[in-house]
Amino acid sequence: MKEYQVALLGFGTVGSGVYRIISENGAQISHREGISLSVRKILIKDFEHEPNLALAPRELFSTSFDEVVSDPSIDIVVECMGGIEPARTFIIKALDAGKTVVTSNKEVMSKNWPAFEKAAKATGAGLYLEATVGGGIPIIRTILDSMQANNITRVMGIINGTTNYILTQMTENGQSFEDALKDAQALGYAEANPTADVEGFDAMYKLSILSSMSFHAHMPIEVIYREGITKLTKSDFETAQLLNYRIKLLAIGKKEGNRIEVRVHPTMIPDTHPLASVRGVFNAIFLTGHAVDDVMLYGRGAGCMPTASAVVSDIIYACHHDKAHKYMTFVNEESMSGDIELVKDFSCIYCIRLHVADKPGTMAAIAGAFADHGVSLKSVIQLGENDGVSSRITFLTHMASEFGVNEALKQIEKLDCVNEVESVIRVEE
Amino acid sequence: MKEYQVALLGFGTVGSGVYRIISENGAQISHREGISLSVRKILIKDFEHEPNLALAPRELFSTSFDEVVSDPSIDIVVECMGGIEPARTFIIKALDAGKTVVTSNKEVMSKNWPAFEKAAKATGAGLYLEATVGGGIPIIRTILDSMQANNITRVMGIINGTTNYILTQMTENGQSFEDALKDAQALGYAEANPTADVEGFDAMYKLSILSSMSFHAHMPIEVIYREGITKLTKSDFETAQLLNYRIKLLAIGKKEGNRIEVRVHPTMIPDTHPLASVRGVFNAIFLTGHAVDDVMLYGRGAGCMPTASAVVSDIIYACHHDKAHKYMTFVNEESMSGDIELVKDFSCIYCIRLHVADKPGTMAAIAGAFADHGVSLKSVIQLGENDGVSSRITFLTHMASEFGVNEALKQIEKLDCVNEVESVIRVEE
Repeated sequence: MKEYQVALLGFGTVGSGVYRIISENGAQISHREGISLSVRKILIKDFEHEPNLALAPRELFSTSFDEVVSDPSIDIVVECMGGIEPARTFIIKALDAGKTVVTSNKEVMSKNWPAFEKAAKATGAGLYLEATVGGGIPIIRTILDSMQANNITRVMGIINGTTNYILTQMTENGQSFEDALKDAQALGYAEANPTADVEGFDAMYKLSILSSMSFHAHMPIEVIYREGITKLTKSDFETAQLLNYRIKLLAIGKKEGNRIEVRVHPTMIPDTHPLASVRGVFNAIFLTGHAVDDVMLYGRGAGCMPTASAVVSDIIYACHHDKAHKYMTFVNEESMSGDIELVKDFSCIYCIRLHVADKPGTMAAIAGAFADHGVSLKSVIQLGENDGVSSRITFLTHMASEFGVNEALKQIEKLDCVNEVESVIRVEE
Repeated sequence: MKEYQVALLGFGTVGSGVYRIISENGAQISHREGISLSVRKILIKDFEHEPNLALAPRELFSTSFDEVVSDPSIDIVVECMGGIEPARTFIIKALDAGKTVVTSNKEVMSKNWPAFEKAAKATGAGLYLEATVGGGIPIIRTILDSMQANNITRVMGIINGTTNYILTQMTENGQSFEDALKDAQALGYAEANPTADVEGFDAMYKLSILSSMSFHAHMPIEVIYREGITKLTKSDFETAQLLNYRIKLLAIGKKEGNRIEVRVHPTMIPDTHPLASVRGVFNAIFLTGHAVDDVMLYGRGAGCMPTASAVVSDIIYACHHDKAHKYMTFVNEESMSGDIELVKDFSCIYCIRLHVADKPGTMAAIAGAFADHGVSLKSVIQLGENDGVSSRITFLTHMASEFGVNEALKQIEKLDCVNEVESVIRVEE
């Protein structure tokens, strides 16, 4: 039986979970897979402040990355430290040394893809990243090993559990964003500084990876439109409910020919859509392929054991493919169909709520502004109280241009009869 | 670039879809995967009655299996004829000849697994069957390549689109079984003879494959409890709605230690369960692994292109693994933990509706019968009209033994105060 030695960089939630699975299920993995896995080294910052020191034998721990990377017996380096440095340097050095790297770190991966790819190709080292997107959900493997014969035209997902928990609370319990965030922090779903989650950065990192894989073209984070959930109000959820929509933070990628659009923003989707019923910290990713049509994968997008499950599945996969199929992430990185055109002026349906003066001519002025910029309206709904002086009007557009809507709203904001553009939420059907 | 020659056995819905994908997407597959695929032979019954003859060049077609199997240039044989014979014989002969077999035929696979395994092992041929379960849903690959480190404790799925369409119509439009079946037949979702679907045989074949893969132990169809949807009435759907349940034909496998239960039957699930919102002909499979927790995969469970997408993904996978990883279906076929105990007396929650005489002592007699057989009641609900003479009572049990419930119902049926046991539906939460 072939033996593989693993080094763990980082021993937090994910690293300790990987250690636990390899320790507890090692015999079973050997039986099923015909390989033997063992953890040979665990890199930590220092012995004094390491909280999980009791979870593995003392002799496995090391504070020296050089000791790890120079150990010729180590085949696979698992990076689960998170953050940019020293993760970036360690990954490059491990690949330079010809060691296969498995990572769960979406930020470092999405920000350094070209450098990692170059290093991996130079030495023939493998690089696996199933755990970077959707925790235990097998999304990367599905794209690469099950949808090979498909042109993927759309990827649309709930890929941040923290914000989905907050939005579920706001939808189901009428909580404010602030209260839902506090609850999420108390439950350990959100960090003390929640910016990466609630402003959509985490989803943006993951969408960069997901869309690059899906569309076989590198989509760096810089090309992704990003908008978080911090500005959503109770009124937005009331509007959504009345229109039979749910509000979700969606990561969306679409490809039509060579035209690609990639964006992360709060989105209204019909409450009958499979993504609408994804509640709490669960994640789900909806893929559309030209042959397979719609496929959705659902599961726990984070957490110790689900993410560790994905890491260990990558380790086993890497063992089976160490010669045959090395560049699983790269062979298909470049499009065969010429230059990709990145679409910033994408088309969408928009749900726009205005606070307006209740006087003759208001509707005509607003409708005129939309028409001036080619935005066609599907429905206009007056919701909520009307005090006789002002009212709230919700507009649902037909498919309209992002830039057109922005220009129309600039004009509408300046109208005397408009008190405020209260909310603009994109809609996917 | 390595070239692979494919033979198609059968050129109906699936076979013609495979041909189309390889023809139309061949260049793209070569670019991404570094392999060249081509269809070299298409086996049909006879030229006169072949409806799809115009879809491929005449010289590819053959009516002689011997010609196909004896062609040394053919690497991969795709069986998509359906039915038992001649599919069974052809698969065995292809494996005997050392050719890798890809099949979409759940019936022949579930009924001949041991013979196919023996033949494949003898010559080292590969055998791939992603397309047998869930059409385009990558469920087999997920179990084998993404959940390797998990003990799968439960698999629960909607794996027959025909019955899910019928049940969706009965739920949402209040149709009778007969009317919904007629609609399904008119739309091409159900066959003229719908027995295999509506009596749960198709789901049983698929569950045999799914549970064998999930539990790493062969689960032949003979050990699967099977019950179809033909006896469901409008009253059942009304009851379900009042209790906030949906009725689905579920294929269920559970494993606890060495104890396994496998069953196909109409099931009530809470309407908040992710499977509850799987509508129409869509399929979805819910897996629970000890590390990854709950994962669900959703998509089109049938149809030309989705199923062909799964077949082509198997062909490409087989090309990449022709030496390295051959027995993807078999290495893990036997349990390492000793003999499997098959549980026929499984435990479940039951929803039981009785038509009873409206007189003193009725409830005491019924409750007594349940108690006699250890069936504990969670709730008793009187639903619908009460004419003063008779009424309908619905009992929801706590977890109870299948045998215990059956014995209790035998006793209850004999009670003077009971007119009829109208319905018994199992519940999963």
